[in-house]
Amino acid sequence: MRKRDDRGTVADYIPELSRVDPAQFGIAVIDEAGEIAAAGDCDIPFSVQSITKVFTLTLALGMVGDRLWQRVGREPSGSPFNSIVQLENERGIPRNPFINAGAIAVTDLILSGHQPREALGEILRFVQFLADDPTIHIDKAVAASEQRTGFRNRALANYMRSFGVIDNPVDFTLGVYFHHCAIAMSCRQLAMAGRFLAHGGIHPNTGRSVVHPERARRINALMLTCGHYDGSGDFAYRVGLPGKSGVGGGILAIAPGKATIAVWAPGLDAAGNSHLGRIALEKLTKRLGWSIFGA
Amino acid sequence: MRKRDDRGTVADYIPELSRVDPAQFGIAVIDEAGEIAAAGDCDIPFSVQSITKVFTLTLALGMVGDRLWQRVGREPSGSPFNSIVQLENERGIPRNPFINAGAIAVTDLILSGHQPREALGEILRFVQFLADDPTIHIDKAVAASEQRTGFRNRALANYMRSFGVIDNPVDFTLGVYFHHCAIAMSCRQLAMAGRFLAHGGIHPNTGRSVVHPERARRINALMLTCGHYDGSGDFAYRVGLPGKSGVGGGILAIAPGKATIAVWAPGLDAAGNSHLGRIALEKLTKRLGWSIFGA
Amino acid sequence: MRKRDDRGTVADYIPELSRVDPAQFGIAVIDEAGEIAAAGDCDIPFSVQSITKVFTLTLALGMVGDRLWQRVGREPSGSPFNSIVQLENERGIPRNPFINAGAIAVTDLILSGHQPREALGEILRFVQFLADDPTIHIDKAVAASEQRTGFRNRALANYMRSFGVIDNPVDFTLGVYFHHCAIAMSCRQLAMAGRFLAHGGIHPNTGRSVVHPERARRINALMLTCGHYDGSGDFAYRVGLPGKSGVGGGILAIAPGKATIAVWAPGLDAAGNSHLGRIALEKLTKRLGWSIFGA
Amino acid sequence: MRKRDDRGTVADYIPELSRVDPAQFGIAVIDEAGEIAAAGDCDIPFSVQSITKVFTLTLALGMVGDRLWQRVGREPSGSPFNSIVQLENERGIPRNPFINAGAIAVTDLILSGHQPREALGEILRFVQFLADDPTIHIDKAVAASEQRTGFRNRALANYMRSFGVIDNPVDFTLGVYFHHCAIAMSCRQLAMAGRFLAHGGIHPNTGRSVVHPERARRINALMLTCGHYDGSGDFAYRVGLPGKSGVGGGILAIAPGKATIAVWAPGLDAAGNSHLGRIALEKLTKRLGWSIFGA
Repeated sequence: MRKRDDRGTVADYIPELSRVDPAQFGIAVIDEAGEIAAAGDCDIPFSVQSITKVFTLTLALGMVGDRLWQRVGREPSGSPFNSIVQLENERGIPRNPFINAGAIAVTDLILSGHQPREALGEILRFVQFLADDPTIHIDKAVAASEQRTGFRNRALANYMRSFGVIDNPVDFTLGVYFHHCAIAMSCRQLAMAGRFLAHGGIHPNTGRSVVHPERARRINALMLTCGHYDGSGDFAYRVGLPGKSGVGGGILAIAPGKATIAVWAPGLDAAGNSHLGRIALEKLTKRLGWSIFGA
Repeated sequence: MRKRDDRGTVADYIPELSRVDPAQFGIAVIDEAGEIAAAGDCDIPFSVQSITKVFTLTLALGMVGDRLWQRVGREPSGSPFNSIVQLENERGIPRNPFINAGAIAVTDLILSGHQPREALGEILRFVQFLADDPTIHIDKAVAASEQRTGFRNRALANYMRSFGVIDNPVDFTLGVYFHHCAIAMSCRQLAMAGRFLAHGGIHPNTGRSVVHPERARRINALMLTCGHYDGSGDFAYRVGLPGKSGVGGGILAIAPGKATIAVWAPGLDAAGNSHLGRIALEKLTKRLGWSIFGA
Repeated sequence: MRKRDDRGTVADYIPELSRVDPAQFGIAVIDEAGEIAAAGDCDIPFSVQSITKVFTLTLALGMVGDRLWQRVGREPSGSPFNSIVQLENERGIPRNPFINAGAIAVTDLILSGHQPREALGEILRFVQFLADDPTIHIDKAVAASEQRTGFRNRALANYMRSFGVIDNPVDFTLGVYFHHCAIAMSCRQLAMAGRFLAHGGIHPNTGRSVVHPERARRINALMLTCGHYDGSGDFAYRVGLPGKSGVGGGILAIAPGKATIAVWAPGLDAAGNSHLGRIALEKLTKRLGWSIFGA
Repeated sequence: MRKRDDRGTVADYIPELSRVDPAQFGIAVIDEAGEIAAAGDCDIPFSVQSITKVFTLTLALGMVGDRLWQRVGREPSGSPFNSIVQLENERGIPRNPFINAGAIAVTDLILSGHQPREALGEILRFVQFLADDPTIHIDKAVAASEQRTGFRNRALANYMRSFGVIDNPVDFTLGVYFHHCAIAMSCRQLAMAGRFLAHGGIHPNTGRSVVHPERARRINALMLTCGHYDGSGDFAYRVGLPGKSGVGGGILAIAPGKATIAVWAPGLDAAGNSHLGRIALEKLTKRLGWSIFGA
């Protein structure tokens, strides 16, 4: 895999990310028993970016419950990750929690009643808890880089604010958003953090319930239909697992009842998803018969 | 279930369908062993409408293979079933084979090189073969009704023709399309016809391979992401199974490796999917733990 | 002018039009007193195409009055001449009578209660009357060419039919539409036909009132805001006269109280308007101080 | 006019404007000779809002010339005044200088190389010069009100910034924009300020040339095609004069070579233009035969 020529393009809209070496490739698989298989650059932390949207959604659902769905939809968008057209047509309600607008609205719910610093701390501690690793941190250079350049996200947030979909000051909400997207994790950490989704909402390391089994299933369903922006249909078609990608080149995939897989390769395809990451998952799932769509 | 008050609205855009009694409700489940559980109006044939799109897609893939994807996409549309906006933005290529435009393009591929009557015969025989029932027929009154009133589908077809996405005379392609949508099946017949998708492409009744296992998985994936128009995300979230709805009020759902389920209740929700049908599937799947997204 | 290199591109979406020699150029100006100045290929008939929309609008307003505006809007479209997106967003009501959809809806109003042949005869006689020239005819090869290939217009018409904006059988309405677009006129004839718009609704040749002065002004206003598709703003900015273009390369411009100008050069710009025609009008209007926007 | 019942709705999206008494009505007409006819509340200053876009466009064209058109288009938008959809489809380039996005981009050009305070001073002095009245001022309460609530304009500005259509810090550009929109003028002052547009770019009071005659014509053309947002076509159809409206309820109309007219009535129609103001202009223009589209 590391020899492939066509690796896609490293994200350049966040300047700090454009400096990442595109030749890196890592993967980690953790099965039901907790056995870990990992290879390549599986211990190098990378910017997980949109993959945190899975964790912030989980956290927000725990805080506000199904009231969340008054502010965010559950349908695939049929548009790029940063599109604003849909918001104008649907009165500022983002289509789902995994496009940028939706994740900003979810962040705003987490923020409500807190200071940005507290909210961000809560998110980070939740991710550390899920990954069972208190060393996970936020890459401040990446967060600062997006703070300086994230005009399109600022447009999305102000637009939602004009419809009352966002309550807090836009700068506060975006501050938390940019920082939690800048969490750095290795494939190994990421695969660990996703285990509760593969195992009925229970985190196998601790035996503690993170979410109700039904909620875990539903988050998986959202990952399947909306987890890869306007490439979600293709990912489901090829890989056949719920997954969430980030423009840092990572993908977290869930094989319910079987395993979690985290893969990282910085080059992105046209839809903004890791090119080699998707190919690796396609091959792996096929070989192991892990597709949720049949043997 | 038959006592529920809020049953949604019977489709009225095809005049013939608006005459159906909305109080009817039927369901049939066929498990891996071939055991059938059926209830209610499970033997009354209804107009399957868009559910045939699953079978025409299967047939067309068998005829032209992956070349089909040059004419049709694989992404959820983010738009109603009969939207034309997306076509203008994407040079006449429909987003997926399960919105009307996509299914018309698929029908056009099946038609190529044949007379409409031959193509239609082939589709009908394929459905009869899948359901193992040669009595399945086309409801000509429904087909004629849509022939007279299907202006929006005629717009879609002419629009695609202007981009060269459709090759045959529009009236020929639409004639075949309107007729195969007018196939009438009962829940029992429909659950039978879908069995190859639950069992790795092999039809359990005959043991014959209908499609390669990978293709069966991929069709299931498309049903999951695109099978309920702009309600696909919600169906995945609530039911957690690949499914395809029709405006006649039917839904075919696939529990891979476990069972097929066909349900019928004519009242539709705002997205054009059977309202009670979806609720029934949600309850059933939850009770039986059949969600593909985890236990 | 005939030596200019960059002449734009001859319309190719109607096969018959693509055979026209792009090197032709004609112009005719008729002032208030009826004096004619003409040059170049001013006596060669060309396919006026969308320019007839001015005449069919005038005719339809005479037949149904302001009731027409229940079916057609009066706003610039912000879209290409053959866009269908706007129709979906506005329940099938075309934005104005000069985009294709609008002109088809206007044609449908003229057709109501008549046979296509009668309606077409009425339109042709009206144009002959306006141009004071009974030899004006329809180019049947052009009409037939568009009948065979006008899939996009067929899509527009069926789409509007699905919303009840068109009453007659789509083939009838389009038959009349394709034929009146295929009227062939020379610059001299066209400049003559437009005189009632420059002179308060009265045709100077005969002294007969064609329309009320207010209606003439209003048709001019529509030509100014909507007469050049998505290049209308630019035409107003550069030329400063009400005008209507056709993909045959003709433009009819009105200098109220002063003159009519017809120009013809087959090469089109990106918005579908005659490239050299617009430049010629810009130079002429500037030199003569005819802009309606000031000396 | 002051007795009319249906006065439309006072703008409520800027809180400060929603407190204006909707029963007010003023008008001022200044003819070529400088004779002033004024009536009603013609001396009460109101928030001119978008009408300043005419003056900032004039100023910016004087500063950067036709280079301005690299950042802003010249076509009607076919969308509401604050739409963002068009920006996504056209890479951040607003359709014309009179929708909000376009006026923000024009403001950004004026700002370049200056401090916000300087740029704002320059705009205010230009308007004072045009109106020949140094008492004209900015209503700081209105500016502050929009600063607090203008989320949608903030979205537009950030969106354009993401495409590089805006150069300066968004808060600077919007600060200048919100403040110049908050200039307060009476009908009498406004009619005076517009006189250069009616008289070939020369300001009759001073005899000084404000812009080249061609530029004055072109600004008039833009006002005609784009001056009333998505009601521009209707205004041209009914009134037949170049005009620019503001959500404060004012309209400035230009009768080239004849007069300027300023009218004010706070109630707005669905497109955001003064309802009674438009009706008054329609009646006046008709009686006086001032339509640019013919006698």
